[in-house]
Amino acid sequence: MQQHSSLSIPAQPDKVLTGDRATGPLHLGHYVGSLKQRIELQHRFEQTILVADMQGLTDNGHQPQKVAANILNVVADYLAVGIDPAKTTICLQSSIPALAELTMYYANLVSIARLERNPTVKNEINSKAFGRSIPAGFLTYPISQAADITAFKATLIPVGDDQLPMLEQTNEIVRKLNQIAQDEVLVECRPLLSHMTRLPSVDGKSKMSKTMGNTIMLGSSEQDISKAVKAMYTDPTHININDPGRVEGNVVFTYLDAFHPDLQYVAELKSHYRAGGLGDGKTKTILEECLQSLLAPIRERRALLLADKAQLVSILKEGTAKAREESDGVLRRVKTAFGLNLF
Amino acid sequence: MQQHSSLSIPAQPDKVLTGDRATGPLHLGHYVGSLKQRIELQHRFEQTILVADMQGLTDNGHQPQKVAANILNVVADYLAVGIDPAKTTICLQSSIPALAELTMYYANLVSIARLERNPTVKNEINSKAFGRSIPAGFLTYPISQAADITAFKATLIPVGDDQLPMLEQTNEIVRKLNQIAQDEVLVECRPLLSHMTRLPSVDGKSKMSKTMGNTIMLGSSEQDISKAVKAMYTDPTHININDPGRVEGNVVFTYLDAFHPDLQYVAELKSHYRAGGLGDGKTKTILEECLQSLLAPIRERRALLLADKAQLVSILKEGTAKAREESDGVLRRVKTAFGLNLF
Repeated sequence: MQQHSSLSIPAQPDKVLTGDRATGPLHLGHYVGSLKQRIELQHRFEQTILVADMQGLTDNGHQPQKVAANILNVVADYLAVGIDPAKTTICLQSSIPALAELTMYYANLVSIARLERNPTVKNEINSKAFGRSIPAGFLTYPISQAADITAFKATLIPVGDDQLPMLEQTNEIVRKLNQIAQDEVLVECRPLLSHMTRLPSVDGKSKMSKTMGNTIMLGSSEQDISKAVKAMYTDPTHININDPGRVEGNVVFTYLDAFHPDLQYVAELKSHYRAGGLGDGKTKTILEECLQSLLAPIRERRALLLADKAQLVSILKEGTAKAREESDGVLRRVKTAFGLNLF
Repeated sequence: MQQHSSLSIPAQPDKVLTGDRATGPLHLGHYVGSLKQRIELQHRFEQTILVADMQGLTDNGHQPQKVAANILNVVADYLAVGIDPAKTTICLQSSIPALAELTMYYANLVSIARLERNPTVKNEINSKAFGRSIPAGFLTYPISQAADITAFKATLIPVGDDQLPMLEQTNEIVRKLNQIAQDEVLVECRPLLSHMTRLPSVDGKSKMSKTMGNTIMLGSSEQDISKAVKAMYTDPTHININDPGRVEGNVVFTYLDAFHPDLQYVAELKSHYRAGGLGDGKTKTILEECLQSLLAPIRERRALLLADKAQLVSILKEGTAKAREESDGVLRRVKTAFGLNLF
């Protein structure tokens, strides 16, 4: 876990695309894993953030309200943490028809066998226990991601290494399409890998999940933050304060690493904890103070933003209009590659 | 083979959708199997004909020119046989974004296993020898067909019985979507089955196929028609004129059944042929006269139409604009069913 990693970014003017499936409000895992980076990136690159509502439906087709109800929550989360709509294009997937159209064209260039081999999809299918009833939209979502990436001419995609197969799939489509077109219609993308590991859940057992109640949302109340920190998994063998304690796997320290601004101080805390004499009550108090001061202004801005939904809609609409223009241009070129440019 | 079958059509105002994959100019098989019926249907129903260029790409992704080059040929074929653009909406699939968008939404409601069980798709996959490399767009094309049918609120679909599983798939999607919406957003469709069997190829062996050179196109020249009739498979055991001949499997008689206006006369010819004394030269001359007189005006109109491509484009564009309006309305309702109606 290291959020101050120096990212290796080439000199040429790249375009960055990121996004989130709008299946819930964002949490601290999103913050350290991606939002903080986007706040930096928007000053250095042309950046698009896609609110992926259609992709959210690929495994929520029968409970679509889970997606619809969260679109504005996610936009509010972006703005509350400091994503600036004047610098970053925030757009809504379902209102950009070219993305669906590009997906249809690309689907002719990818075999079912290739999709089934995709390790990311394989893992996700296993974790969701779809069995034989994988929705078609879910198996084919790497094609839809390729549409998203290419529609905005994105060349630099911030991802974890578990997502690398998705980018490979995109680049395969890019090469096939360019071969058909005998021209460089689409551009290949590269990953922007960070050294960030996934933030564990409060209980230390799994990925953060709102439904499992073991995560801290960006909009969590002071009380909820306090409760979550108190419930954090530490070192079960560290029974008396004077016993030596384990830092590895201790969620409190993982969060301190991720969020405390003073790394030197955290290093000292770790030594003290390992040696014995530092209680979990104390480390939790330090972490809670740190999280409360991080989240208080975010929570406040978020509430203000959500109190004016019309403004949020207007920001999203404006970004979407810009995104449509760009993606329509790419679609035109792809259709031309297939000879479909009658009108 | 019986093109004068009385079709059982209910009294309520149905909407009819048909279409053709734009992978080649249309031939006599299309004419008896579907175009003749559409000419009748346009007087009785609101009818839409979809030039399915995107669907044509599902198995031609790597040779897209096969599709692009045939779009206007197909439109010219329609008009040449008597499809009236004032009565029938002729539209181009790739220029109707709602079709791709609906496909994406419906893909979340259909499992891969369900698609793999579809008998029509199974047969087509076998006949194309895709093996494990079925393009995703091909396996999922029943979903795209459901989008086509529902986008135009079509309730009556002229099909052969081999296509019934496609309509079942569509109606499954309709029911699932309506259940999610808790409203009748989409309407189910019914097949309009005709008693028409498939017109065999000239050699009597297979489906008509332009590439195999054993078919008669609507635009075939006088010479090509003559050549095709002369090459027709008859009865290989009918060596001397006075021998009794077989009518069953004799392509000349199958075509006479399908195209000769005087059924009584064809019945007499059959008796004569069976009894012996009627030569293949004679039956072929009768058939050729019949086909030449059918196709001469069609060929002429077709050539005139193709000489003014701008007019064809304009007709297709106008139909497409109308189709977009209708399909955009359906898409809005489907998106609303998924809660996606922010703007």
